[in-house]
Amino acid sequence: MPMTQTVPPWTDEVLDFAQDLAGQARAMALRWFRHRPRVETKADASPVTVADRQVEEFLRAEIGRRYPDHGLLGEEFGIQDGEAPVVWSIDPIDGTRSFITGNPLWGCLLAVLHEQRPVFGIIDVPCTGERWVGVRGRGSWLNGERCRTRTGSRLQDAILQTTSPDLFAGEDARAFERLSSAVHLRRFGGDCYAYALLASGTVDLVAEAGLMPYDYLALAPVIEGAGGVITDWRGGPLGPRSDGRVLAAANADLHRQALRILAADA
Amino acid sequence: MPMTQTVPPWTDEVLDFAQDLAGQARAMALRWFRHRPRVETKADASPVTVADRQVEEFLRAEIGRRYPDHGLLGEEFGIQDGEAPVVWSIDPIDGTRSFITGNPLWGCLLAVLHEQRPVFGIIDVPCTGERWVGVRGRGSWLNGERCRTRTGSRLQDAILQTTSPDLFAGEDARAFERLSSAVHLRRFGGDCYAYALLASGTVDLVAEAGLMPYDYLALAPVIEGAGGVITDWRGGPLGPRSDGRVLAAANADLHRQALRILAADA
Repeated sequence: MPMTQTVPPWTDEVLDFAQDLAGQARAMALRWFRHRPRVETKADASPVTVADRQVEEFLRAEIGRRYPDHGLLGEEFGIQDGEAPVVWSIDPIDGTRSFITGNPLWGCLLAVLHEQRPVFGIIDVPCTGERWVGVRGRGSWLNGERCRTRTGSRLQDAILQTTSPDLFAGEDARAFERLSSAVHLRRFGGDCYAYALLASGTVDLVAEAGLMPYDYLALAPVIEGAGGVITDWRGGPLGPRSDGRVLAAANADLHRQALRILAADA
Repeated sequence: MPMTQTVPPWTDEVLDFAQDLAGQARAMALRWFRHRPRVETKADASPVTVADRQVEEFLRAEIGRRYPDHGLLGEEFGIQDGEAPVVWSIDPIDGTRSFITGNPLWGCLLAVLHEQRPVFGIIDVPCTGERWVGVRGRGSWLNGERCRTRTGSRLQDAILQTTSPDLFAGEDARAFERLSSAVHLRRFGGDCYAYALLASGTVDLVAEAGLMPYDYLALAPVIEGAGGVITDWRGGPLGPRSDGRVLAAANADLHRQALRILAADA
């Protein structure tokens, strides 16, 4: 049975509210950017700043006030009512390593899930003033203008992007090297920005490992709404229990070719 | 005999003119950004677009009209009067691979050399509206505000950035891995933007290989004016005949430590 592409009746109202929140989170995070926020190291060795925490606290409080029945899944403060029919996924600053090194390509990620599936996703990039929004079954927009992935499907012409080669170890690293050898150009850097560029049609493939649900739940509606495909490295749908390996492609044809290469030795 | 830190009497006039040119080049390049400029592959396998060529042609024509005695050294159209007392170094779009993948972190690089040494350098980043200017013996500024490198000198706390691991082969790759292991964090991406972040105090080290004179001649005054050090991987000054391996550091102490590690097996 195909999954429904219709959205719940509350979609527009909640999306308006989410966009308003993204605007406020943008201003809040920018106040800390390049102002030497104190950096701490989390249990998983990733860095966190006062900006990550302040923005997530703000978002959770505002969502809780407006929609007390909604669940929350956030990078810094975890899960609350994760089995509620409607759950928000929050990454206050995706790309904290960029944030602390003064690199402007970090973003705030918001998604709203209905019955565990994203209804919409937002990638807000404060420094560049860009906001990508994708709504299931409707499409994707960059600052209000429709955006679409590239249609070219020759792997040897494709541009592959990933945040860092350090995301991969062992067989993942070998698989990534195989994919790199098959494409025209590989680029590093970007975090959520790589996926946003894919939605806007200037990058063809993004392959990463070690991602958490709050990293990818907001990306999926933006990429799918723009015509792309995003799955795990086995071609399975991304959900709260995915293994963190993500493959995004500009179209189904490229996706199929890239999947085959990633899985070649598995 | 120490090299003089004084600048020629014409410095302010030429710098004003160069800044005006950078503003016009910015507008020109932005018209092509994300508008699918045609991409060609040069003899060295690097890409070039109509934007690179148009911007450099514009700059060469304007400089030639105003200062017919000045020499020119440009990425796309080569050397003209390279032995003139005053020579301009031009990289119309540093980060062409970023440019063609829709990534906003590319820049226009301009330097003016007097007797083969840079008097000033400009890193102009159109998408973010940022312009770094460094003048020999005077200092460096980001959009008119003084910028300074970081003073911390513990290698184990340092942030290292480089455009791509694909810059390095053989012993260079091993040296880069040694340096990576000695620092707190390594980051990929950026081209000229990595050096600009170092001048602004959020990145501590940049190590790259394969750079051309028009890539680094504009960087040196910006980094040195901000308090940093930039040399080749042997600690020698960067000049038109350097071997393309560049090490920039936030301060002399970090620079010394990084040099030692890069040279460990050499």
